[in-house]
Amino acid sequence: MFPSFAQRLREAIVAKRSPLVIGLDPDLSKFPPALSAVPEGDKEAAARAILAFNRALIDATYDLAAAVKPQAAFYERYGSPGIQALEETAAYARKKGLLVILDAKRGDVPNTAEAYAQAYLAPEGETTCPADALTVNPYLGRDSVDPFVRAARENGKGIFVLVRTSNPGAGDLQDLTTSETKRPLWQEVAAWVAAWAEASRGAETYSPVGIVAGITYPQEATLLRTMLPHSYLLLPGVGAQGGQARDALPCFDKEGLGALVVAARSVIYAFSRPPYNDRFTPDKFAAAAREAAADLLTELYAAGYKVGR
Amino acid sequence: MFPSFAQRLREAIVAKRSPLVIGLDPDLSKFPPALSAVPEGDKEAAARAILAFNRALIDATYDLAAAVKPQAAFYERYGSPGIQALEETAAYARKKGLLVILDAKRGDVPNTAEAYAQAYLAPEGETTCPADALTVNPYLGRDSVDPFVRAARENGKGIFVLVRTSNPGAGDLQDLTTSETKRPLWQEVAAWVAAWAEASRGAETYSPVGIVAGITYPQEATLLRTMLPHSYLLLPGVGAQGGQARDALPCFDKEGLGALVVAARSVIYAFSRPPYNDRFTPDKFAAAAREAAADLLTELYAAGYKVGR
Repeated sequence: MFPSFAQRLREAIVAKRSPLVIGLDPDLSKFPPALSAVPEGDKEAAARAILAFNRALIDATYDLAAAVKPQAAFYERYGSPGIQALEETAAYARKKGLLVILDAKRGDVPNTAEAYAQAYLAPEGETTCPADALTVNPYLGRDSVDPFVRAARENGKGIFVLVRTSNPGAGDLQDLTTSETKRPLWQEVAAWVAAWAEASRGAETYSPVGIVAGITYPQEATLLRTMLPHSYLLLPGVGAQGGQARDALPCFDKEGLGALVVAARSVIYAFSRPPYNDRFTPDKFAAAAREAAADLLTELYAAGYKVGR
Repeated sequence: MFPSFAQRLREAIVAKRSPLVIGLDPDLSKFPPALSAVPEGDKEAAARAILAFNRALIDATYDLAAAVKPQAAFYERYGSPGIQALEETAAYARKKGLLVILDAKRGDVPNTAEAYAQAYLAPEGETTCPADALTVNPYLGRDSVDPFVRAARENGKGIFVLVRTSNPGAGDLQDLTTSETKRPLWQEVAAWVAAWAEASRGAETYSPVGIVAGITYPQEATLLRTMLPHSYLLLPGVGAQGGQARDALPCFDKEGLGALVVAARSVIYAFSRPPYNDRFTPDKFAAAAREAAADLLTELYAAGYKVGR
């Protein structure tokens, strides 16, 4: 038996005393000049720059975060070399004691969902990309998510189902009220998650089935906390998207578990953004990222965050 | 200016006299023995087998189909070498006069959707993967799809937005009735598509914004045809998923345009399925695929399909 994803999350959060997740969204146009000078169209060089950027960020922040969340799009942009940079980033993060949540938002018909599950949630040692968890899109219905739930439970991995996303247009579809139950659609999806979580948690408090809930919508996130006592909430949207770390407070349980606060651009590109751009030159991007991550953690603790019994 | 995706689709359909799309879902466990004998865990060898399988299929069917539809999951399973096999498959298909519809069902917050659009819908020559179109998931709302619509229009590419998918569980979410308009959710998404199509088609009949509608739900597909006069319908579900090619008939316009019939497993693994397995040995998998594709086309024509004025 593999230790469950929830167990590994608990260990990481307690060891780091941090529920932070650093989003690794490498965009060369935002890189410090020393790394962004890549010949046009040279995918291998771009992939090398991404790996160098990520390794420096991981070295600078691994003790302040429970996990990293690479966003697949930014690696897929560079094709096969980009995917290699993703795999090497994930392996490096794990070596430094970070869990890896691959933000790829996959979702497909059952036969294809199986193939995605084999790619990202296979048993340790058999997996294509060394990930601990995957984000999953529920638009295709329950049978499209089942293969991910099954693989996560069997192989000690996790999934985070998109419920209420962090973008301005999230409500276009997710807020539509259903005639059947008079609830917004995102609550329907939450009800599916509740069933998966209950069926897959065994004797543990938290199941391998978590959700994505944008911290840019704190009321919805707080309600989801009470609706889903057995699911981790992955909370993106802090910083560049306008969310505040302290808004996550109601999403934690008494031990400081049950939620993960994601910061991406506001941390990894801190060197180019106030207030850090005044104090850090671009070549000190990793130190700036460390300070931005530490500041987020300080904000959480100042707002009352506590970890452990 | 690039020729539009709709223009290129028209040319391909008329030249081949076929609205067929061959789904390239390479699953080693279903391969003929000569190709499936890959050492456990050897991703490079798996990728080579996939490329050999796909090239043989393309060689055998390129004159019977307008496009191929590689399903990203089956390539991602083999990591970076798998993605290279995908890129080489796409390049080879285009060289043989086939359009490439990458079935990756991407969808993300706007900043990330931009990165996906750059990966798959960049201008010709700048694109990471040589694709002509991409499938897109609408769960995150309109602002998550906008970057794909924009890139498709500007760069002569296409997108197919998931509206009513082909799997048994499709209705779990897509059939929920919304209190606001008393319509099922899939019709809400169709209304978004109608607006994107109208805004992006210019003077052409068909816009770069199409939809995915499972032919396993022929009534919904037929209704979508009338709701979306300016969108191509990509119709998966023929064969292994239980759909019939002739059910697609109402989805074509008078010139035989406006819809694409996808067959994947029933064609590419025809050698192992009735009635073809009686007549073809596994090493003749490409010839079996050709016959299965030709039979589908014959079925369409027998049911009344016509192409051209």
